[in-house]
Amino acid sequence: MKRNIMLSILTAPLMVAAQTVTSPNGNVEVKFSLDGGRPVYEMSYKGKAVVKPSHLGLELAKSKHASKGMEETDLMDGFTVKSTDTSSFDETWKPVWGETATIRNHYNEMAVTLSQAATKRDMTIRFRVYDDGMGLRYEFPQQEQLNYFVIKEERTEFAMAGDHTAYWIPGDYDTQEYETVISRLSEIRGKMKEAITPNSSQTPFSDTGVQTSLQLKTDDGLYINIHEAACVNYATMHLNLDDKTMTFTSWLTPDGQGMKGYIQTPFNTPWRTVMVSDDARDMLASNLILNLNEPCKIEDTSWIKPVKYCGVWWEMIVGKGTWSYTNDLPSVHLGQTDYAKCKPNGTHSANNEKVKRYIDFAAKNGLDQVLVEGWNEGWEDWFGHSKLDVFDFITPYPDFDIKMLNDYAHSKGVKLMMHHETSSSVWNYERWMEQAYSLMNNYGYNAVKSGYVGDIIPRGEHHYSQLMNNHYLRAVTEAAKHKIMVNAHEATRPTGLCRTWPNLIGNESARGTEYEAFGGSAPYHTVILPFTRLQGGPMDYTPGIFETQLSTWSDNPSFVHTTLCGQLSLYLVMYSPLQMAADLPEHYEKYDDAFQFIRDVAVDWDDSKYLEAEPAKYITVARKAKGTDNWFVGGKCGEEGHTAVVKLDFLDKGRKYECSIYQDAKDADYEKNPKAYTITHKTVKKGDVLKIKEARGGGFAMSLFAK
Amino acid sequence: MKRNIMLSILTAPLMVAAQTVTSPNGNVEVKFSLDGGRPVYEMSYKGKAVVKPSHLGLELAKSKHASKGMEETDLMDGFTVKSTDTSSFDETWKPVWGETATIRNHYNEMAVTLSQAATKRDMTIRFRVYDDGMGLRYEFPQQEQLNYFVIKEERTEFAMAGDHTAYWIPGDYDTQEYETVISRLSEIRGKMKEAITPNSSQTPFSDTGVQTSLQLKTDDGLYINIHEAACVNYATMHLNLDDKTMTFTSWLTPDGQGMKGYIQTPFNTPWRTVMVSDDARDMLASNLILNLNEPCKIEDTSWIKPVKYCGVWWEMIVGKGTWSYTNDLPSVHLGQTDYAKCKPNGTHSANNEKVKRYIDFAAKNGLDQVLVEGWNEGWEDWFGHSKLDVFDFITPYPDFDIKMLNDYAHSKGVKLMMHHETSSSVWNYERWMEQAYSLMNNYGYNAVKSGYVGDIIPRGEHHYSQLMNNHYLRAVTEAAKHKIMVNAHEATRPTGLCRTWPNLIGNESARGTEYEAFGGSAPYHTVILPFTRLQGGPMDYTPGIFETQLSTWSDNPSFVHTTLCGQLSLYLVMYSPLQMAADLPEHYEKYDDAFQFIRDVAVDWDDSKYLEAEPAKYITVARKAKGTDNWFVGGKCGEEGHTAVVKLDFLDKGRKYECSIYQDAKDADYEKNPKAYTITHKTVKKGDVLKIKEARGGGFAMSLFAK
Repeated sequence: MKRNIMLSILTAPLMVAAQTVTSPNGNVEVKFSLDGGRPVYEMSYKGKAVVKPSHLGLELAKSKHASKGMEETDLMDGFTVKSTDTSSFDETWKPVWGETATIRNHYNEMAVTLSQAATKRDMTIRFRVYDDGMGLRYEFPQQEQLNYFVIKEERTEFAMAGDHTAYWIPGDYDTQEYETVISRLSEIRGKMKEAITPNSSQTPFSDTGVQTSLQLKTDDGLYINIHEAACVNYATMHLNLDDKTMTFTSWLTPDGQGMKGYIQTPFNTPWRTVMVSDDARDMLASNLILNLNEPCKIEDTSWIKPVKYCGVWWEMIVGKGTWSYTNDLPSVHLGQTDYAKCKPNGTHSANNEKVKRYIDFAAKNGLDQVLVEGWNEGWEDWFGHSKLDVFDFITPYPDFDIKMLNDYAHSKGVKLMMHHETSSSVWNYERWMEQAYSLMNNYGYNAVKSGYVGDIIPRGEHHYSQLMNNHYLRAVTEAAKHKIMVNAHEATRPTGLCRTWPNLIGNESARGTEYEAFGGSAPYHTVILPFTRLQGGPMDYTPGIFETQLSTWSDNPSFVHTTLCGQLSLYLVMYSPLQMAADLPEHYEKYDDAFQFIRDVAVDWDDSKYLEAEPAKYITVARKAKGTDNWFVGGKCGEEGHTAVVKLDFLDKGRKYECSIYQDAKDADYEKNPKAYTITHKTVKKGDVLKIKEARGGGFAMSLFAK
Repeated sequence: MKRNIMLSILTAPLMVAAQTVTSPNGNVEVKFSLDGGRPVYEMSYKGKAVVKPSHLGLELAKSKHASKGMEETDLMDGFTVKSTDTSSFDETWKPVWGETATIRNHYNEMAVTLSQAATKRDMTIRFRVYDDGMGLRYEFPQQEQLNYFVIKEERTEFAMAGDHTAYWIPGDYDTQEYETVISRLSEIRGKMKEAITPNSSQTPFSDTGVQTSLQLKTDDGLYINIHEAACVNYATMHLNLDDKTMTFTSWLTPDGQGMKGYIQTPFNTPWRTVMVSDDARDMLASNLILNLNEPCKIEDTSWIKPVKYCGVWWEMIVGKGTWSYTNDLPSVHLGQTDYAKCKPNGTHSANNEKVKRYIDFAAKNGLDQVLVEGWNEGWEDWFGHSKLDVFDFITPYPDFDIKMLNDYAHSKGVKLMMHHETSSSVWNYERWMEQAYSLMNNYGYNAVKSGYVGDIIPRGEHHYSQLMNNHYLRAVTEAAKHKIMVNAHEATRPTGLCRTWPNLIGNESARGTEYEAFGGSAPYHTVILPFTRLQGGPMDYTPGIFETQLSTWSDNPSFVHTTLCGQLSLYLVMYSPLQMAADLPEHYEKYDDAFQFIRDVAVDWDDSKYLEAEPAKYITVARKAKGTDNWFVGGKCGEEGHTAVVKLDFLDKGRKYECSIYQDAKDADYEKNPKAYTITHKTVKKGDVLKIKEARGGGFAMSLFAK
């Protein structure tokens, strides 16, 4: 008897009683426990498992750069609970720009401090639980036994409760420009090869690796989204699926030597976030990522303003114009090559005449800025050569008179938008950054679109590594010193840092409108991106292509995979404080009545209401223009079309609104009849219900001006 | 019969008739030919083989970043001679500082342009032949078929004519601080393991790899030295020995991905140099490396001045003081850590009182500058943690009043010398460089000692890679914009760039005086360095340690492996425009009569005459102080002692000189009686012969003031 008791004592797992924290409304519950010294968490929503018991921890590298004297080189196990602190938080804050004027940050928090006896070091795991999900992060206090360490891999698990439907793109250290694949988790492996389409810089790493944010839907109607928040001085996280157990484990982006992070304590990892709801609209309305970020660090934000712009860009993407100035040169040596002696190729788009035309167009149509790409020396050999000294960001081509054009723009109440394509020679960009930003100040630019096309220099680094994330944030903080707004393309997908640095007004960091010129994107593309890419920060999607059939005006056989009204809807459906009217002025002039919507639509909002949503199927959203009583509504759908039911119950009571509805014509179709649209004008009031039929790959846009 | 003739035709090598170029005096002959399409060169001196027939060429990497469409991916073979150009050059130029006031650049040149038919591209190999050796380099014109390429390895061979004696240090991508080994070429392999002593950053790569410059001596008395000149935007070359054939092949320093160079044409490689003479003194007197470099690029050089300095440094190296300010902190977060709240450790050397003492000492003794290490925040955890944001180069410790101390120094006609230890976080240093140089301008500093201790960030890069060489030169060219002189420690060993950028007044880049505190260096160390390390540029060796037995004033049991007079000789034997009196003021005060020599010795010269020389045995040199009629003579020897025969035939005829001779006492010995010296005063004239006995590990120094 005694022996049996002894045995059972020995074999019973060393379980620590689970500690629990719930959301303010009680729907979300997070539990923490130890499993034989290993930290474990799980999460449920209204009693249903969202994340089954999952391990937490980090594997450290045995590195000569880590602190000496550690018996254990991991932060994986051997832990006991030292203390637990719980608290609540409820504050409302105002973003500088956003979907709503105010955001409520309301959560319950539990911070569990663990001690690893063998190494005498502590680690805290902090949970913040919201009504729409949770965030967790690791915190490493500064302590004698833990000063510097090198991460071999972070091992945060997310054990899924079933073979969910996933809306995923392949995990990759260098690109996010893949089409979203919709499949069950179990099918990821089989579909991975086909999903990895060519890109100028790409490094996939696993047959079952995916990027975040990852949108999921369970068979019983739960929507789950996994991402991260506040990724600062840390490598970007991907998720690697064990498709036997349906468990994702964090997989960080390595440096050129395969190491995943160099850490100095005190340090907090980014938050690993899991959003959940049984209502898809909550995925889009959630502010969890922003709420987990630090408050705004910029004192005077008066210079940060949302921007509606056009630009000398699309014609080059389509292939009708060039960024380069001359075809004479086999290569360029900046500072030595004399462009004045070269024969202009006649296709260089960023020339004085054309830029003035765009400035006139912007002024006439109330657009704030004109982006000009290809304004500066170096485009003849900028790509594909791993060229270190590729651009200097300060020397214009002979036919771009930087002073004259900026003066001209300013005389018409318009600004030019700067362009810094770095060609991923980040070593070079950091050398020029101060001069480049100062030049912007000198000529009155206040916004820059930056780009990181191609493989990174320092060679071997990846786009989403710790060092590159450090660089992207530095570009933003240095810009802030110059009162410059940044829109970084090909940089890491955002994790809410725009709350802390609101001059980060955009990223691309996904498959953008340019792909419509490279063969097209699936019609459902922009009906998924708000669920996935837009978590964590807006996207400079550059919508508004009216002339969807590119072959009508170029040699490019590609076509836009939406209707014209689908394009209009994106100004609502793809929220961004930076919105481009991306097509050529002449195409807008041709469809001027439809262009009225773009003239009218706001880019900053006091309120947003997601009326309908289902990933890849349809999104319908209404937004109230900041500082006005006016509303705008947009709806987009995928391959199957959709009839949007728009209940105008958000309007002010007792007020009338002039409503203009831009919608697909009855026979519109993104392939066969994309530019067929109707514009209807009517007066509406609170309580009215509008049913709007969207064509296959189509959408609608609506303006409601208060009378 | 017919068949035999056919066979002999087929098997006869496709030899191109050799093309020859000789030195102006005819002693050195270089031949070029093609061996089955492979370029071959050989070199002889007075009819003796110096370099036996050796191949030339480069292996290219198949890289997506190279130009497309090349059938051949190498520049190794398949060549024919397209054209040959010969010319002569004879000019005398004036260095801004140096061993002599003028330097004659006199050579015969042969440039062979080769065509590679399969790829339709040309490459030129240029030979410049001097009376004391030759240089060769590869030139890649800009051409359609060769715009960008990636080097997998350069394959320049140096086939030695025998199992020569070599004075070598292990090839290593990250350090040059090894003791020189003296052995035959065939013994390198067996001695390599022992030669690789520990270093804070080291990456040896081959059992038979050595660094340049490599000094050799043949059994029949030829001295040969292999090095490179004008290494710009290229990786540093090491030499890998095939010890079956006694052939060295170039072995470049790779980047973190193993690639050896990213090249954009037009481009010239560095010169690969082979110096030769039957007189060892010619090795030391040669200006071949400087002559192969581009002329000075700085217009106004009036701000570039040689410097004699002392410094707050040695006491920390010995262990008596610290760079760090406090022992309170387990780690430092620059900009957050508040040093004002920390308890001073009481050992921080760079404090106001001590620095003023050194300023007083410098002023009293006619020294130009005072180096201060440890003046700035960050030293508490600067090393061994691969810390990115390790120093900011602008924030002093609380007890270093940067304004007061600079004002104090200037009031006494002295400058402070800046210190930028980068901790090899080059990514960080480039971010701060502009501000750091501007701060120097603000406070009146005009010279900086920089350091690169530890492993490089970007992680994976090596100290002598193409990207790092690009950085070191940038640090110099940016400094020139600020009228700042640079003395870069742990950077790449110099290749004569100080001709082009004379504000590069020094490098360490070898095992310096600090090692006397780390166990000592062999007595012959500084009797080899002038043959090896000093080719290509001066070394900031920081000599002048009088109190050679460190245990008499510290807990450090190490001792300097020379006599006191040996230290004095280094001001002559180890030429440098930057000379430190490295010991503590109190030690100089104790031996003030010997210190008189350091007070007197010049640091810039109108003329230099190497009187005696044999690697590792003895060097005796006389130098004429710039702008005066005064001469200084120094002699150093190794383990066996030496009697120097100093023939004063370089003095002006009909003039008398006050001669002070500082020499080892009769019973002096670097181990047993290092500080025993005598000082003799006498009047001398042209033609006098002085015999001066140098103790084991000793030397002598002499000043001759014209009456």
